[in-house]
Amino acid sequence: MHLAERYPAIRAYSQALIAPLSAEDCAIQSMDDASPAKWHLAHTTWFFETVVLKPLIDGYRVFNPAYAYLFNSYYNSLGPRHARPQRGLLSRPHLDEVLSYRAHVDAAMDQYLANADEEFLRLTEIGLNHEQQHQELLLTDIQHAFYCNPLHPVYAADAAQLAANARAPAWLPLESGLHSVGHTASSFCYDNETPAHQVWLHGSEIASTLVSNSDFQAFIEDGGYRDATCWLADGWDWIRAEGLQQPLYWHDDAATAFSLRGDQPRDPHAPAAHLSFYEADAYARWAGARLPSEREWEVAATLFPQHDWFGQVWQWTSSPYQPYPGYRPPQGPLGEYNAKFMCNQMVLRGSSAYTPDGHSRTTYRNFFHPHCRWQLSGLRLARDL
Amino acid sequence: MHLAERYPAIRAYSQALIAPLSAEDCAIQSMDDASPAKWHLAHTTWFFETVVLKPLIDGYRVFNPAYAYLFNSYYNSLGPRHARPQRGLLSRPHLDEVLSYRAHVDAAMDQYLANADEEFLRLTEIGLNHEQQHQELLLTDIQHAFYCNPLHPVYAADAAQLAANARAPAWLPLESGLHSVGHTASSFCYDNETPAHQVWLHGSEIASTLVSNSDFQAFIEDGGYRDATCWLADGWDWIRAEGLQQPLYWHDDAATAFSLRGDQPRDPHAPAAHLSFYEADAYARWAGARLPSEREWEVAATLFPQHDWFGQVWQWTSSPYQPYPGYRPPQGPLGEYNAKFMCNQMVLRGSSAYTPDGHSRTTYRNFFHPHCRWQLSGLRLARDL
Amino acid sequence: MHLAERYPAIRAYSQALIAPLSAEDCAIQSMDDASPAKWHLAHTTWFFETVVLKPLIDGYRVFNPAYAYLFNSYYNSLGPRHARPQRGLLSRPHLDEVLSYRAHVDAAMDQYLANADEEFLRLTEIGLNHEQQHQELLLTDIQHAFYCNPLHPVYAADAAQLAANARAPAWLPLESGLHSVGHTASSFCYDNETPAHQVWLHGSEIASTLVSNSDFQAFIEDGGYRDATCWLADGWDWIRAEGLQQPLYWHDDAATAFSLRGDQPRDPHAPAAHLSFYEADAYARWAGARLPSEREWEVAATLFPQHDWFGQVWQWTSSPYQPYPGYRPPQGPLGEYNAKFMCNQMVLRGSSAYTPDGHSRTTYRNFFHPHCRWQLSGLRLARDL
Amino acid sequence: MHLAERYPAIRAYSQALIAPLSAEDCAIQSMDDASPAKWHLAHTTWFFETVVLKPLIDGYRVFNPAYAYLFNSYYNSLGPRHARPQRGLLSRPHLDEVLSYRAHVDAAMDQYLANADEEFLRLTEIGLNHEQQHQELLLTDIQHAFYCNPLHPVYAADAAQLAANARAPAWLPLESGLHSVGHTASSFCYDNETPAHQVWLHGSEIASTLVSNSDFQAFIEDGGYRDATCWLADGWDWIRAEGLQQPLYWHDDAATAFSLRGDQPRDPHAPAAHLSFYEADAYARWAGARLPSEREWEVAATLFPQHDWFGQVWQWTSSPYQPYPGYRPPQGPLGEYNAKFMCNQMVLRGSSAYTPDGHSRTTYRNFFHPHCRWQLSGLRLARDL
Repeated sequence: MHLAERYPAIRAYSQALIAPLSAEDCAIQSMDDASPAKWHLAHTTWFFETVVLKPLIDGYRVFNPAYAYLFNSYYNSLGPRHARPQRGLLSRPHLDEVLSYRAHVDAAMDQYLANADEEFLRLTEIGLNHEQQHQELLLTDIQHAFYCNPLHPVYAADAAQLAANARAPAWLPLESGLHSVGHTASSFCYDNETPAHQVWLHGSEIASTLVSNSDFQAFIEDGGYRDATCWLADGWDWIRAEGLQQPLYWHDDAATAFSLRGDQPRDPHAPAAHLSFYEADAYARWAGARLPSEREWEVAATLFPQHDWFGQVWQWTSSPYQPYPGYRPPQGPLGEYNAKFMCNQMVLRGSSAYTPDGHSRTTYRNFFHPHCRWQLSGLRLARDL
Repeated sequence: MHLAERYPAIRAYSQALIAPLSAEDCAIQSMDDASPAKWHLAHTTWFFETVVLKPLIDGYRVFNPAYAYLFNSYYNSLGPRHARPQRGLLSRPHLDEVLSYRAHVDAAMDQYLANADEEFLRLTEIGLNHEQQHQELLLTDIQHAFYCNPLHPVYAADAAQLAANARAPAWLPLESGLHSVGHTASSFCYDNETPAHQVWLHGSEIASTLVSNSDFQAFIEDGGYRDATCWLADGWDWIRAEGLQQPLYWHDDAATAFSLRGDQPRDPHAPAAHLSFYEADAYARWAGARLPSEREWEVAATLFPQHDWFGQVWQWTSSPYQPYPGYRPPQGPLGEYNAKFMCNQMVLRGSSAYTPDGHSRTTYRNFFHPHCRWQLSGLRLARDL
Repeated sequence: MHLAERYPAIRAYSQALIAPLSAEDCAIQSMDDASPAKWHLAHTTWFFETVVLKPLIDGYRVFNPAYAYLFNSYYNSLGPRHARPQRGLLSRPHLDEVLSYRAHVDAAMDQYLANADEEFLRLTEIGLNHEQQHQELLLTDIQHAFYCNPLHPVYAADAAQLAANARAPAWLPLESGLHSVGHTASSFCYDNETPAHQVWLHGSEIASTLVSNSDFQAFIEDGGYRDATCWLADGWDWIRAEGLQQPLYWHDDAATAFSLRGDQPRDPHAPAAHLSFYEADAYARWAGARLPSEREWEVAATLFPQHDWFGQVWQWTSSPYQPYPGYRPPQGPLGEYNAKFMCNQMVLRGSSAYTPDGHSRTTYRNFFHPHCRWQLSGLRLARDL
Repeated sequence: MHLAERYPAIRAYSQALIAPLSAEDCAIQSMDDASPAKWHLAHTTWFFETVVLKPLIDGYRVFNPAYAYLFNSYYNSLGPRHARPQRGLLSRPHLDEVLSYRAHVDAAMDQYLANADEEFLRLTEIGLNHEQQHQELLLTDIQHAFYCNPLHPVYAADAAQLAANARAPAWLPLESGLHSVGHTASSFCYDNETPAHQVWLHGSEIASTLVSNSDFQAFIEDGGYRDATCWLADGWDWIRAEGLQQPLYWHDDAATAFSLRGDQPRDPHAPAAHLSFYEADAYARWAGARLPSEREWEVAATLFPQHDWFGQVWQWTSSPYQPYPGYRPPQGPLGEYNAKFMCNQMVLRGSSAYTPDGHSRTTYRNFFHPHCRWQLSGLRLARDL
């Protein structure tokens, strides 16, 4: 599909996501890591205005100069910005003003997209992928915000949810030797997926299925959260400081959990989700296995395409987020898109039930700090031969 | 005016205060000390429901049982409550649900007020005074929240503001000897204004005028914020830790300040406002004077009624908030209304431009922690003979 | 006794206090509020050097110019100073260097004291009283530091301890009317004890005995630490945040407590000690009484001199630490001695088992923040008629 | 040299390190990451007692049972332990008691070492390497503690210091292809250096010299600490929050720095040291290069053995600390020695001027959190072809 068609479809999907939400819902921010839905809508629009329209279109009229400050996320090269933890205080601009902002930018994009040059198209493609990332964040962030409300509101009775796994588990073999990883196709990818390069794998096996709620329940019942030997030192300190005893959103009754559908029974056969890296890693150690490296994951996803790699939960890998050999960040502000985060974070692979259609691929590298668990994050196991 | 008439008038005034605000505006909380406007509207309603209707009216139907938890402010005797710093996350109930809650409670109150017994009337009177307190807080809280928004929104172009002082300053004499303070009339007062009692005053003088913006500007220009000898030890530590150099809402340009009317020129002849106790005390020391005690203030306000005691700014006194001799808190939940706060706070006297009509009196004791400065708080000087 | 005799006696007593301690013991600091024993020895010496010798003695040779920075406690007018929480890092100067510093200053003081003028004597008197205050702090601070060591070291097997109360409890009457408080004698007092002034007392009664360990045990057993209605709001928040359930130094076994003699059985008839103001106040409310005001305490101590006013525990009063009417701080650095702390602290009266001989008087005003409890602080009750 | 000879030599060297220190010096702890010298002496002794003597020698008499709690560093499998940030409060046991503890354990070790079995020898070897690690930490920790003392004490006038680099800089080639890394010799290594394995290198170059003080000065003068584009996001946030503008121990005068010899002129040709990973990484980016990976470093150190790999500064690599492929931690408490720290830390290679003789090797993996900079940590550059 040409960008001129994909642009309005993707932009419309963002707005469809807030259909169940009031203006008040769209304004709240429940923690520093999360953002209000309204902010996601404005920031993704700011991205098109700032990265595509302003530099490329002579005479483009900026909707509101103050938005450059309010809706810059983290681009130091684009000037100062509103403090992230204060995004929930922005009752102004109102939601309808943000929607007008979207309409203003969409009209300009529509005007130029049909006959755009290659650079315009290239940056628009990035902007659309960027918007899709925020579509997933909008959902994880509103889920967290609603969880903080004692009323535990329902986002939507038919919101995306995790399917039970029907397949029998198996260990899939990964042979020792040189393999290729990284993006090589002509289609879009982020800079961090390049350059494609060779890696040496040491023979191992990777699970064909995701760890399920009942698997994880067994870990808890075996005292996993009380046994220091299962945990990395930083993880152990963290669960003790926070008093954690189960995944995020699980209720103490051991049978229900909070989701975009509100409080719901937990399906024992659905994949475990809302785990931090520390919990995923501790589970793996308890199970006598380990997390796969991101290179193992990618090779396996290429070799064995039918095994739940996508669309359920993001899968923690054992790999710290690092540049690929020979990686160079792009010039200009987009150089800040990925490169500066390549420290202290862990790579997740796959995609989740909240990931928009068309935003998954084998080489995709997602990343979060190891304690983060408000994403739909789970795991699959690997083991050495 | 009978309570059956005052009740709807006061309740309507609360809702009039949010006329300039959107639902989004009504949901935000800018700091732990402040609350969202929506929460003020709900909490004051919860007060009537919990303190008046539920105990006194058989068969009263509670609007929503969850509200007992959400809108309890600090009454331990009324059960657990939502954490204060999390009030800004309550997008639900929506503003219109809160307005429905108000209508539900108002209907019940209206039904019973006309023929209410004395206890019903007594508790209703407290509820109305309580609501008036929150009317002022609603304004100070929204001002602070708007100040945190880089857009510096205007609440209302005709919002209350401080008048310039027209009178010449004078020192009013307070003679040594026994005086009476505390509430004696049959009209309403809070428990903390009683019992009336005798105090011994040591001869002093009290200023007939409030300290003005230009007065306070002189203190700043003389290096007041950099001179430790002006400050109490805790105050000095606090302004250093916070990097403070001027009153809250003043802009560095030394000519404008933020108010409910947005950024506005500062009137040099208007009273200085948004001062903490520490700043008021430091100013007084710099000026070779001191703050009056609350008893001095009260005696003076009785003797010299024409001197700006009310309606401009609350005036910090040198008096820690303490029970009067012989004070006993009421039985039951209202015993928590005042008594448990009688530590670590300082008394302010008078009333401010944001105080609702009919909510000022000579014996009224307002109180805040000494670093608080988001109220309309200023000072007048006193000195020993 | 003339100052020329008292000076060496009081100075020697400070050094006697560290006889049971190693150089290592003298260097440790267990919390921001406490100081190492070595620091106390140096700071009190710095006081004589800085306040007496340097200003008054031409040609006095400063022992080490760096000590002006290291051993200034809180005098802004005497220049910058080492951060209080870092006092425990000062392994240098070594203890023996500090003792040499003391000898150097003592030699100079000895040389000039015999023929000193009035100003020299006046400042020396303050310095000796200052040293006595630090003698008590040295003991409370080393007790706290030893408590933080899992070995629970003994300071001295014959260290001061609290005596059991032998007298029957009684209520002593305080009549309504004008009374005098404050210091009037020609003997030494601190500035904060002046000016003597008249106060109006409202008739009350004050207990002849201190609250005992068994009294306080009854409060605990009645659920006092779990009943919000006993507590001031700030106190309740504090015990919940800290998880407190008993006085400092009490062990869970309900029979022993830590003291300068190490872990020892608790004497049920000895006064309860190591209470914060919040705990003392909560106990009083639970007991259907209240704390006396400092003026009530002082009048009672004058009227009824045989009732444990001194030498057991400091007694929390209900009085915030405030200047007396007409109080003016001294000019110069000693103006910082007391005045700047007159906010956020509560007055204690009496003296404790750790207070040096000759450092108690009826008008003495001690003061600490309301959560502090590492002093020998207890209470006696009062009640309205 | 047989272990029976190396044991007393290495143990004696630890005690030689405290020769310039008083008992007071040995007791202080300047930050959570550091430990008192006395604690290092005791903990290394505890290691031999706990890991070697108690499990292997029937009838071994424990010196003091309380030490199991006081001197356990981080071994959860060996029971609870004293909180790390409180190590500086342990005035007891006194230094001479700790030296007696050392003598007690040394006597037992001496008795058994001559005829020890293989397991005893294996664990003793680990204990000696462990002691050597703490010898370096003892020096870095006392340097930091002395730096916190405004007197800036000298540890020793002839303490180890960094030599000026005399060689001309060059780029050493690393060819693309399979290389071996990890420990293969029969000599001692830590578990984290195994298993040896093959890695695929992508052709690059590595600098023959370390980055010098004058190199780093050029970065500072070019505004490196003010230019966000040089920094990883977490590093930028960190230097801004801490207000950092230069390496640890550099003085603002740009000519001197603090060291174990006290404040000394900086040698522009000596290697830059006391850098965090963030600073090393920012420097490399500013210089148009990057940090080497640990595998590049190890291959280069094997190929080009004459180039300052050892004995000056530990060299930050771009490699997060991770297990090698196929790594399995040892059974028992030593399984906690390395494995649980393999998260959130970065690998340093080489050794420093403070590293004891005989404690360096090509495969050695040191690791610290990326903000740590109190070690002798610097860098060498690498670049892609």
